[in-house]
Amino acid sequence: MGARLHICMTCKAGLAVPEGEKPMGAQLWEAVAALESPEGVEVIPVDCLSACNTGAAVALSMKGAWGYVYGRMVPENAADILAGAAAYARTPDGLVPWRERPVIFRKQSLARIPPMEA
Amino acid sequence: MGARLHICMTCKAGLAVPEGEKPMGAQLWEAVAALESPEGVEVIPVDCLSACNTGAAVALSMKGAWGYVYGRMVPENAADILAGAAAYARTPDGLVPWRERPVIFRKQSLARIPPMEA
Repeated sequence: MGARLHICMTCKAGLAVPEGEKPMGAQLWEAVAALESPEGVEVIPVDCLSACNTGAAVALSMKGAWGYVYGRMVPENAADILAGAAAYARTPDGLVPWRERPVIFRKQSLARIPPMEA
Repeated sequence: MGARLHICMTCKAGLAVPEGEKPMGAQLWEAVAALESPEGVEVIPVDCLSACNTGAAVALSMKGAWGYVYGRMVPENAADILAGAAAYARTPDGLVPWRERPVIFRKQSLARIPPMEA
């Protein structure tokens, strides 16, 4: 079982959405989906990551691993998000060495959750 | 397997810790540990929930359930945190009806992570 990269489709990133535009989350989803997913990473849209004022938000999860949520993501971050997800997928526990994390993951962590299994 | 309430012991909640005082996370831990844990809830100290500027942070996790992280918690919230954890533990999927969540959980969600199992 590989890593899951969840992308909040509905995220408005705390902003009003101008008529005719898509919310930031949907824009981010499109940018990520347009790129090739790295090995071991499944990209999954979700409806809300409860980080509405600090979105667009993405979450990484993997069986037996720490889960991470990152915020203030924009479509231009798509490649970095996938690179960070690929590094995460290569770990057994979700703990990517600090220097191997994309800068946006180092600086824009919202929270992490301990592994479900102990 | 029940719910786990993780409490960040090291959280300084974005503040300097005055000499002789404990960081906010340790104070919160003591307040929660002083109360009786509800049925089905295991209270577990952790070292960092990567929510350092929005702490003190607590996280709820349970097998097959959404994981939640809440922030800006203070020791006075200990009873509400345990009540919220008890309501969470009674669900199969972590999704507590909105009105049954403590106000601090409604207003101070940092993020949530989809269940590890699909």
